[in-house]
Amino acid sequence: MALIVKKFGGTSVGTTDRIQAVADKLAAAHSSGEQQVIVVSAMSGETNRLLSMAGEMMPKRADPRELDVLLSTGEQVTIALLCMALIERGVSARSYTGGQVRILTDNSYNKARILDIDVSAISADVENNTVAVVAGFQGVDAERNITTLGRGGSDTSAVALAAALKADECQIFTDVDGVYTTDPRVEPRARRLERITFEEMLEMASLGSKVLQIRAVEFAGKYNVPLRVLSTFEPGSGTLITYDDEDSTMEQALVSGIAFSRDEAQVTVSSIADRPGTAYSILGPISEMNVEVDMIVQNAAEDGSTDFTFTVPRQDFARVMEFLESQKVTMGAREVSGDDKIVKLSIVGVGMRSHAGIASRMFKALGDSGINLRLITTSEIKISVVIDEKYLELGVRSLHEEFELDSDPA
Amino acid sequence: MALIVKKFGGTSVGTTDRIQAVADKLAAAHSSGEQQVIVVSAMSGETNRLLSMAGEMMPKRADPRELDVLLSTGEQVTIALLCMALIERGVSARSYTGGQVRILTDNSYNKARILDIDVSAISADVENNTVAVVAGFQGVDAERNITTLGRGGSDTSAVALAAALKADECQIFTDVDGVYTTDPRVEPRARRLERITFEEMLEMASLGSKVLQIRAVEFAGKYNVPLRVLSTFEPGSGTLITYDDEDSTMEQALVSGIAFSRDEAQVTVSSIADRPGTAYSILGPISEMNVEVDMIVQNAAEDGSTDFTFTVPRQDFARVMEFLESQKVTMGAREVSGDDKIVKLSIVGVGMRSHAGIASRMFKALGDSGINLRLITTSEIKISVVIDEKYLELGVRSLHEEFELDSDPA
Repeated sequence: MALIVKKFGGTSVGTTDRIQAVADKLAAAHSSGEQQVIVVSAMSGETNRLLSMAGEMMPKRADPRELDVLLSTGEQVTIALLCMALIERGVSARSYTGGQVRILTDNSYNKARILDIDVSAISADVENNTVAVVAGFQGVDAERNITTLGRGGSDTSAVALAAALKADECQIFTDVDGVYTTDPRVEPRARRLERITFEEMLEMASLGSKVLQIRAVEFAGKYNVPLRVLSTFEPGSGTLITYDDEDSTMEQALVSGIAFSRDEAQVTVSSIADRPGTAYSILGPISEMNVEVDMIVQNAAEDGSTDFTFTVPRQDFARVMEFLESQKVTMGAREVSGDDKIVKLSIVGVGMRSHAGIASRMFKALGDSGINLRLITTSEIKISVVIDEKYLELGVRSLHEEFELDSDPA
Repeated sequence: MALIVKKFGGTSVGTTDRIQAVADKLAAAHSSGEQQVIVVSAMSGETNRLLSMAGEMMPKRADPRELDVLLSTGEQVTIALLCMALIERGVSARSYTGGQVRILTDNSYNKARILDIDVSAISADVENNTVAVVAGFQGVDAERNITTLGRGGSDTSAVALAAALKADECQIFTDVDGVYTTDPRVEPRARRLERITFEEMLEMASLGSKVLQIRAVEFAGKYNVPLRVLSTFEPGSGTLITYDDEDSTMEQALVSGIAFSRDEAQVTVSSIADRPGTAYSILGPISEMNVEVDMIVQNAAEDGSTDFTFTVPRQDFARVMEFLESQKVTMGAREVSGDDKIVKLSIVGVGMRSHAGIASRMFKALGDSGINLRLITTSEIKISVVIDEKYLELGVRSLHEEFELDSDPA
């Protein structure tokens, strides 16, 4: 019988009624003989309630150790309530905090990393037909201090537990019914993918398709845990995320999805001297300002000078521009210019590896729609372009059609 | 330097503002060099909020193990917030759940008993001038399941911790400023006691002076932990509860306080055959009805019959009467009568042990006020009477005056 680790996020367990609905679902699977281990988040709103109290105590920055003691109560409430609901339905169930499992982490409070999971108690529960319900997002360090894994940590807990238990699948229940070819709010003809590879999912997630946390996908890829995203509220098989095996590559679509990000701004330093250290002299200080630089492009001109362009998160645009203006003379740059009315648009697909000409199809499709490309970067399975914000919807739809994502694959 | 264990109840930490106020108080004591270990309850209202969610999951009775997992989050929130407030004030502080301490209990969920406390981590904190903040009310069993100590368990946690640490004093901060000679709402001239013995406190507590939980007082007595009740909100030295040592006995008042209970009803079975087993034949079934019988008096008559009178909690009166009426013929009783308009009035004092005539002074004072005594029971340090409910206030005041409790002791 299949052993499945199922994770329910904050929205899925956001009210006592929803916890009851999850219990109904699990009880049905239980009576059909499925072996289940459950991971849950805090009820939605609870973490913010706790954070707000912490903010009253320490307005600047909460003590990291005590913050984890506080936040970890959120999931502890959920595990107890869900177990009660299961027991009420005649299903033997048993809750575990991170410490009780024990999920051993390093001692980086607020952003701990899982080092080891002792699955002996949970394995015994599985043997005894008892549903173990585990608090996500939390663990303990070697001194049994409570730690939390940081944002989205519950997905990581579930994947790590599935890896440690050698589960057949890790299912992430959320409020969407799978991973789509692109955002359906932008392209109504977007289609749910039956299947996607870990690498593609990583590219999609990091580009703004916020279905799964990147860390969890990385973890699943590393330990080869088949991961499935599906809806708590709607029936359906969701999207399965696995390794790209030989068979599936044969019929793999060239492009799996179209990702985009509105949270972008572009900065250009023009006619700066092209010599070793130039890039660092610009990006070093910006990194120290705690700004994450994304795309970086440098074009050397004939005269020994170069134009240096990069993108930053939109909310950091103003202070980055201010800083660069103040450094213009020191840097020996002719001009510093920028634009925060731009977006990033990407096509993602493992099919690119073995097929040439995909980039030119992309550029042609956009060009035919009258969209100018301002920046281009490529990786093995992704091509990204920066375009004017106003062309976002048009660009997404053009590419969606060009790569035949509207219709079901053969 | 003195080591003090301080316990703050739910009202004392009922809001984030109140937690800040407690932190102010503790920070002041810290800078004066006092060594402190803190025990806290859940914020007032939190336990009810959690219980109500549990009630939605399991309407009849919550699963005991999962209920403890749920309820223990209440104190965990408080320890984290209080530590943050202390750290914000520059005081080194560190929180501990019951499991982290580790407070080892038996495995009776919802009403666990403390078996052992490992004080090594907390002792190290004391050495390092760090304030340890411990979650009251909770522990773990030998398998690290979370347990709670049941109602009032935080007081017990504090006393047990003080005993294990060999602390100089255990201070229970609450919303009253000490133990009074009687309830000030009934006798405005009631006076705060500077000192009271464990035995007296036990009698006062069990008679309705709900300042401290009985279990905590018993525990303090057993391990000889000086216990002090004092107000979170008002200055003052509160009331110290200790053993009655030789010196203090010399100047001990005869009567320390007057306790009363309105929650009483009286039941009399008249002219029942006076033979072995009579008492059990009446009280056995009542005990099986889960009714707690308090005072019991039996008066044998000349004719070999007896009148059997006892008191029960008022809310159980109707069903006890109904039961006894139905059994009247079987019991061979002439009549079953009862009254739920009665109260119990008691004087408590270790001075009684060595002084005769206190009972007759009590009875005379009540008689002079025109109060009829319906039942009398006595123990070593307590005399209780049952009187008509309407005479409660008059009775309390008469005795308060008779035993000179209004004025300060010499």
